[in-house]
Amino acid sequence: MFDPMEFEIDEPEKVVYVVGIGPGDVYYLTQEAQNVLEHADAICGYKLYLDLIEQEFPCEEYYSTGMTKEIDRCRWALEKADTGRRVVMVCSGDAGVYGMASPVLELAQDYPDVAVEVVPGLTAALSGGAVLGAPLAHDFCVISLSDRLTPWEVIEKRLACAAQGDFCVALYNPSSKGRPDYLQKAVRILRANGKADDTVCGLVRNIGREGQSARVLTLAELENTPVDMFTTVYIGNSNTRALSGRMVTPRGYRK
Amino acid sequence: MFDPMEFEIDEPEKVVYVVGIGPGDVYYLTQEAQNVLEHADAICGYKLYLDLIEQEFPCEEYYSTGMTKEIDRCRWALEKADTGRRVVMVCSGDAGVYGMASPVLELAQDYPDVAVEVVPGLTAALSGGAVLGAPLAHDFCVISLSDRLTPWEVIEKRLACAAQGDFCVALYNPSSKGRPDYLQKAVRILRANGKADDTVCGLVRNIGREGQSARVLTLAELENTPVDMFTTVYIGNSNTRALSGRMVTPRGYRK
Repeated sequence: MFDPMEFEIDEPEKVVYVVGIGPGDVYYLTQEAQNVLEHADAICGYKLYLDLIEQEFPCEEYYSTGMTKEIDRCRWALEKADTGRRVVMVCSGDAGVYGMASPVLELAQDYPDVAVEVVPGLTAALSGGAVLGAPLAHDFCVISLSDRLTPWEVIEKRLACAAQGDFCVALYNPSSKGRPDYLQKAVRILRANGKADDTVCGLVRNIGREGQSARVLTLAELENTPVDMFTTVYIGNSNTRALSGRMVTPRGYRK
Repeated sequence: MFDPMEFEIDEPEKVVYVVGIGPGDVYYLTQEAQNVLEHADAICGYKLYLDLIEQEFPCEEYYSTGMTKEIDRCRWALEKADTGRRVVMVCSGDAGVYGMASPVLELAQDYPDVAVEVVPGLTAALSGGAVLGAPLAHDFCVISLSDRLTPWEVIEKRLACAAQGDFCVALYNPSSKGRPDYLQKAVRILRANGKADDTVCGLVRNIGREGQSARVLTLAELENTPVDMFTTVYIGNSNTRALSGRMVTPRGYRK
């Protein structure tokens, strides 16, 4: 069996907590995330996410920056923590999955006195999956279609591999103003690599928020269905079924 | 844009709630999961998970069965709900990911008056990932090495595809008494399909429980490291780094 923990964080004096807030409403926060937010001296994050939690968790100081200023925000959090303030960086969904835990941990190399604690949260694959039923009940992949930070060729290759392996798939960032046709391109790659036209798929929009909506459809239908950036897309494996309007991937217990 | 929700659950009279309790301690439950558990008439689940929550959520009736009696448990829950009791089926981790939401939804076809509500929770990929740092900060796969319900050839194929796509990977059920060498076999498949020997990997044991421990190591080291069934295994992508003992997959913001 392997060695005991190589890193231990015993109430360090200087900490940045990176907290996944899930879909946004306090109803979907873990107790751990609530406790950490309640004891924060400063909370920072993308403006939209701060708006979601500001009322529930009043604190001395808030700091937000826009969509492309992630590194500024991480550095602000680390600088502030280095002065001895309890700093919480909030992320939508999970802190790790496409979240800020990664850049904070990278930049923390420059702040040897500051510890980084990661507090997990419900990533959209899970919270949206629950709305649909059980789309990810067997082996699955999570792939972002955003090519802002990843070359499109890498995304294409991963879509092809996901289809060849008959994985269930959750697609994040399926569309934006600048790339309205990315989901269509992705579906074509999935079909070209073995996903059948009648593969059961699902869409969930505004997960856990006002106006939440969901739909179950086939992969062929998905190819011509426009979606927006507030939508998470689910593609089943070859055993996934539509049952009474829900999307259900069998685990295999009934065989 | 797609149509509004095809299914709506407005306080139906007969409901089975399938609730993901995360690692087990109430500290990691969402507020939603806590609320649902607090209002249960009956709670059912695998014995180990009931033990974890029984003290915090007293209710009229508990029902547990052993490891291979999943279908019995689902049917009990649906039968009980059909009599008008509020029934909660608990799962470790998430309700959907290798959880009981899928078989409950399948069997619910026989109980047209019973609605099924799925309450998501922290699956081990996320809760263990937070312990390691940010191993799944980019596109990732979750694969179970258990061949109890899945043919080993399917698992092999998915491991090969995950490696070819340079995905980060979380491996569930990496070992058991009957199959002590499955992780070793899996690592060999990953290496044969493009994962480099020095790929950064991580292990987390007893996530969120007494005696939690973690370790960061290379893929070559992982091949000869015995693990038990309480361990979740993480394999990085080609950019994943070990930073101050944490496992960090860059998101790409710093490029």
